[in-house]
Amino acid sequence: MTEEIINRPGLQGVIAAQTSLSRVDGLAGELIISGYRIDDIAPNAIYEELLYLLWNDRLPNASELATLQSDLSGLRALPDVAIEALKKAAKQKLSGMDALRMAAGLLSLQADSADAQSSSLVLVAAFPTIVAAYWRLLKGEEIVEPNPALSHSANYLYMLNGEEPSDEQIRAMDTYLNTVIDHGFNASTFTARTIISTNSDVISAVVGAIGALKGPLHGGAPGPALDMVFEIGKAENSEAYLREKLQAGDRLMGFGHRVYKVRDPRADVLNLAAKEFFTDGDQIELYNLARHVEKDAIRLLEEHKPGRKLETNVEFYTALVLHGVGLQTDLFTPTFAVSRVGGWTAHALEHLREGRLIRPLAEYTGESAREWQSIEKR
Amino acid sequence: MTEEIINRPGLQGVIAAQTSLSRVDGLAGELIISGYRIDDIAPNAIYEELLYLLWNDRLPNASELATLQSDLSGLRALPDVAIEALKKAAKQKLSGMDALRMAAGLLSLQADSADAQSSSLVLVAAFPTIVAAYWRLLKGEEIVEPNPALSHSANYLYMLNGEEPSDEQIRAMDTYLNTVIDHGFNASTFTARTIISTNSDVISAVVGAIGALKGPLHGGAPGPALDMVFEIGKAENSEAYLREKLQAGDRLMGFGHRVYKVRDPRADVLNLAAKEFFTDGDQIELYNLARHVEKDAIRLLEEHKPGRKLETNVEFYTALVLHGVGLQTDLFTPTFAVSRVGGWTAHALEHLREGRLIRPLAEYTGESAREWQSIEKR
Repeated sequence: MTEEIINRPGLQGVIAAQTSLSRVDGLAGELIISGYRIDDIAPNAIYEELLYLLWNDRLPNASELATLQSDLSGLRALPDVAIEALKKAAKQKLSGMDALRMAAGLLSLQADSADAQSSSLVLVAAFPTIVAAYWRLLKGEEIVEPNPALSHSANYLYMLNGEEPSDEQIRAMDTYLNTVIDHGFNASTFTARTIISTNSDVISAVVGAIGALKGPLHGGAPGPALDMVFEIGKAENSEAYLREKLQAGDRLMGFGHRVYKVRDPRADVLNLAAKEFFTDGDQIELYNLARHVEKDAIRLLEEHKPGRKLETNVEFYTALVLHGVGLQTDLFTPTFAVSRVGGWTAHALEHLREGRLIRPLAEYTGESAREWQSIEKR
Repeated sequence: MTEEIINRPGLQGVIAAQTSLSRVDGLAGELIISGYRIDDIAPNAIYEELLYLLWNDRLPNASELATLQSDLSGLRALPDVAIEALKKAAKQKLSGMDALRMAAGLLSLQADSADAQSSSLVLVAAFPTIVAAYWRLLKGEEIVEPNPALSHSANYLYMLNGEEPSDEQIRAMDTYLNTVIDHGFNASTFTARTIISTNSDVISAVVGAIGALKGPLHGGAPGPALDMVFEIGKAENSEAYLREKLQAGDRLMGFGHRVYKVRDPRADVLNLAAKEFFTDGDQIELYNLARHVEKDAIRLLEEHKPGRKLETNVEFYTALVLHGVGLQTDLFTPTFAVSRVGGWTAHALEHLREGRLIRPLAEYTGESAREWQSIEKR
């Protein structure tokens, strides 16, 4: 250990490894996915194309895409014991993320953990099945079996709702899944890399990542952002509602980000997706209300915390798009995971190829000269 | 982000958080557990006392210890679906660590994830049951139900073997479990802290940690260290065997450590435990052989890699002690987990109280100006 010891609680500003998967430029407000700007690729590609891109560092041609789609659709079924676990979890109304973590862990029963690429396929293929099955069990409905003729996004919506989605719903879901597929070393992706850095397996890495994404400081906020818009209800209530919240010292959900100091580029992509998708009456009203709330919020945040530059983050428009597609708020974080598993597996595969063991230091702040005393003397 | 950006792949030499749980001094070869030197506390305490110490920053009195033991023994049973999962895993001969990860994940079915302390109890109580049940299933034997009258260590050995262990076996197992209960920010403990740093739950954190411990760069090496001693077989073969290995460029398992540049203090504690425990014929022979191999290995390593100071690490004597207690090598890493879950839960509880979100940066090394092309053009 010849290097100088550095003390950085939370690792802010510390580069822990290299990646060619995504670049987050928090000052420029730019997100690059394997060389493509997020606003260039997310609205145009389907999810399987981004998945291929992250795994292979290039977009697939038509035959490569067809092979990937066929591989995924052949791997959508879950082990029986995973269905059993989801049923038990539903009886206890466990959170969707706990259910996803439990069932995903059981995928070791149908993946060869020594084969990192095939384990990655098993995980990505099964996530939508787990989330949709658990959602239906929670509502007391029959599980809908996967439909092998449908694309990844279309089949996810189909398994959730029991009916084939419209082209517009599929496009909106693909755009959402693409937009959040990867984002540097957030806590869940970094968890996956730390686990795999011991030469463990991809399923172990992804199961750890699910646990991190569950935490409200990471993946859990899109629901509250939408709840706020609904509570406001009408444009004319917006300013008073927001002022009251800010004066009470509450945080406005959907604004501010640890990395972005300008507008989160993903918010723009999802804003456009919502705008295109919301074409009829109620939907347009909700969209316009959200835009109004957003503008008020940014203005009042600047007034309240000058210079902090709290801008709209990805959660605000995530909520709007997923609500538009027909998802209830409890599904938002699990649906985030349905996308992000693509990034997690890609990071695990990359770290297995070229990463090193991740092992930081701790600063000890405890006692140091205690002496053992047998229990009679305590 | 006003701080300077630091590039430290693997985070070597970077302090990621504070802890009062353990201090690892790699240059002095010293390990402190909540204020106590490892050689002072490990051979004297039982495992439940160290657990109490890590959770409460002080040793328990007799009545506190009795309460903890009673709480633990009331929580040893597993959910039915976890037993089902272990049976499926045994049919496929999955590794003990995969089985432990799957079953531990299902403990969310019998823990209130919002209660971090009670979830920690559920985890620590259930680990020995999972490991022992899976071990017996793998061998095609009936699962042995936990015995509520026995201590944590004694019950673990009882569930593994179906008979009550001797006092000497229990003492050796307690000493082993105490010796490896915590060790700074190794990759699995750091994984647990990264997960909980998002305000996730203790079960998610521990399940992630199991995945990291599974990796051979972290928890997987005590088996091979013992295999080497057996392969050598007789003291007179030792030097030639080791020279051949080193000349072939092989790594000697059980020697060298990323943090310790001197003798691992845990090796001494376990060496003493083995010496006391190995009192009859074959055992003494094996102990003497191991000591002989160790001395040869250190001498030849210094000859082969002068100045690298590759000393005996914890794995070498772990193997000897656990073998002496009657455990086969496949049980070594899961038994490590049976101990370390105490440290993982303590770190998760500590980080929940006072830690901050762990989110490092990545260095992007990929392309940056690719342009979207529709699939027909690829």
